[in-house]
Amino acid sequence: MSEEMSFNEGELALILSELPVADGSVREKAVRRQENLTKPRGSLGQLEDLAIWLAAWQGRERPVLDKAHCLVFAGNHGITKKGVSAFPAEVTAQMVANFESGGAAINQLCRASGARLQVIDLELDQPTADFSEQPAMSVAECGRAFRAGMTAVPEDADILLLGEMGIGNSTSAAALSAACFGGDVGDWTGPGTGLDAAGINHKIRLIEQALRVHDGHLTGAFEIMRRLGGRELAAIAGAALAARQKRIPVILDGFICTAAAAVLMVDNDKALDHCQVAHLSVEPGHEILAGALQKTPILDLGMRLGEASGAAVALMILRAAIEVHNGMATFAEAGVTNRDG
Amino acid sequence: MSEEMSFNEGELALILSELPVADGSVREKAVRRQENLTKPRGSLGQLEDLAIWLAAWQGRERPVLDKAHCLVFAGNHGITKKGVSAFPAEVTAQMVANFESGGAAINQLCRASGARLQVIDLELDQPTADFSEQPAMSVAECGRAFRAGMTAVPEDADILLLGEMGIGNSTSAAALSAACFGGDVGDWTGPGTGLDAAGINHKIRLIEQALRVHDGHLTGAFEIMRRLGGRELAAIAGAALAARQKRIPVILDGFICTAAAAVLMVDNDKALDHCQVAHLSVEPGHEILAGALQKTPILDLGMRLGEASGAAVALMILRAAIEVHNGMATFAEAGVTNRDG
Repeated sequence: MSEEMSFNEGELALILSELPVADGSVREKAVRRQENLTKPRGSLGQLEDLAIWLAAWQGRERPVLDKAHCLVFAGNHGITKKGVSAFPAEVTAQMVANFESGGAAINQLCRASGARLQVIDLELDQPTADFSEQPAMSVAECGRAFRAGMTAVPEDADILLLGEMGIGNSTSAAALSAACFGGDVGDWTGPGTGLDAAGINHKIRLIEQALRVHDGHLTGAFEIMRRLGGRELAAIAGAALAARQKRIPVILDGFICTAAAAVLMVDNDKALDHCQVAHLSVEPGHEILAGALQKTPILDLGMRLGEASGAAVALMILRAAIEVHNGMATFAEAGVTNRDG
Repeated sequence: MSEEMSFNEGELALILSELPVADGSVREKAVRRQENLTKPRGSLGQLEDLAIWLAAWQGRERPVLDKAHCLVFAGNHGITKKGVSAFPAEVTAQMVANFESGGAAINQLCRASGARLQVIDLELDQPTADFSEQPAMSVAECGRAFRAGMTAVPEDADILLLGEMGIGNSTSAAALSAACFGGDVGDWTGPGTGLDAAGINHKIRLIEQALRVHDGHLTGAFEIMRRLGGRELAAIAGAALAARQKRIPVILDGFICTAAAAVLMVDNDKALDHCQVAHLSVEPGHEILAGALQKTPILDLGMRLGEASGAAVALMILRAAIEVHNGMATFAEAGVTNRDG
């Protein structure tokens, strides 16, 4: 049996039980550096926090973002047969072609933010099963998707941006969120690419049905992903996990991407400490999800596209953060009077 | 009498009475372009709005940001003698030197965002008068400061970023805001660079005293600025005005910069239609001010530094906005099924 086929619930739980952590002494050095820069303490707000977070995870007092890698995973979903999306399922493959020819939003945003874009489509001609009736994936299928995400993370990335494309996957994301964090399905379910109120109600009923079908089996990260997720969502979780093993900081995109990665927290509530949420999506479940993760999204621009588009814009903010952190003069260097000194 | 000396209340009111407006037909073209790009309509949120806003003001369906010019004006304030700041007044000149040697936050942020930084210090050795007792400036002084701002705007800028440096100027900004928009002085007054609660109360009392001293004279934009403002604040208003005359879109920085520009609205409530507010400052008056301007700040990063630092970070978001607007494929070009088509 190949290594790929062997990845399953036990292996995932094992990896999640022994995760590396950020470098506390480097974090302290970065905090002290910020305190001595020529500005009132704390006056750069999240720019300071983000630089310190990058420093701690990279293990560098002065973090770098030379190699920003953006992974967009694409997958197709059997549940689209039930009419959960405003767009037809063939748009997933059409958009992958659009990514490859450079015409999508994420192509422009990766160029603008200095990220290398890699799009990985996962068996688009094999949609997952309809998870409102049966598990979305077999153990082997789900393991393959996790592995695809894990192996896609470059060893030498300074930061990893994650995103997705998959018609129907906001239905999976809502189901995953409800399974991981509880609460009303209605609170996790939104319009996605543009459902009307009737469409959203239909989506809610399907997810509620799914939670009944899988009741009693939604106990671990792997099994939740296998039953309710999708290939691109498992790959996102796998990539977030591999990044953690390499201590590469991660920017999660919007609702769907955050929901996929958040599944890891079922097995380890610190599993996403190396991640930031790029932006607050308009998709209503995202605010609740960010709260469950105790993370403040970097941006709030009314976006709801996916494709890692929010992650790429947030990378710009991280670049601003490290420029000030690494480049500013200290009070002593600049001869500026420091009332805190 | 030189042109410079002649600038006064009447001239300002005259300019403000006949402002150019955005190009409505270009705006419509930009809206239609956004509707045909390969994404669900509206899914890029503010990125779409910002691209359309830039297009309308630049008069170009596909806006450009090749020449981004950042003006930081610096001035000193007589009211610092009353102990309204956590830092001593000499820090203004020290920070100007820091700007010139490249060590300040704004130097790094302009480099990171691709803006050309120009720092203009206005008679730092001549602080304004203490506005809690008398007008901050004479007519000639205020006119000179307005003119300094107006003449600093490059003819060919694609966008103008405005910011300030001036120990004590959050006191002026709060006074200007109260004079322009009413409300409790306490709501406009915050810690600035780091006052404690007692310091803030002292600041509130001084501003309330100033509003009594100048009662009955705070009727027009020029006179409000002359009595309660400062040289760098008048220059910001002048620069925002000159940009409007040239239809150059403007990014206002935080509370102080927004308050300075907002004085123009006393004479014309549409005077800042060509401006965006870069970010929501932590300084508590800024949220009220942005509301009075009916503008949604682009960013909310807990920043409160000034120096145009928020404007420079917001420029990155505008760059993202025009990259997607100008570079994305349409549904027809990419062969993607458009449910809205």
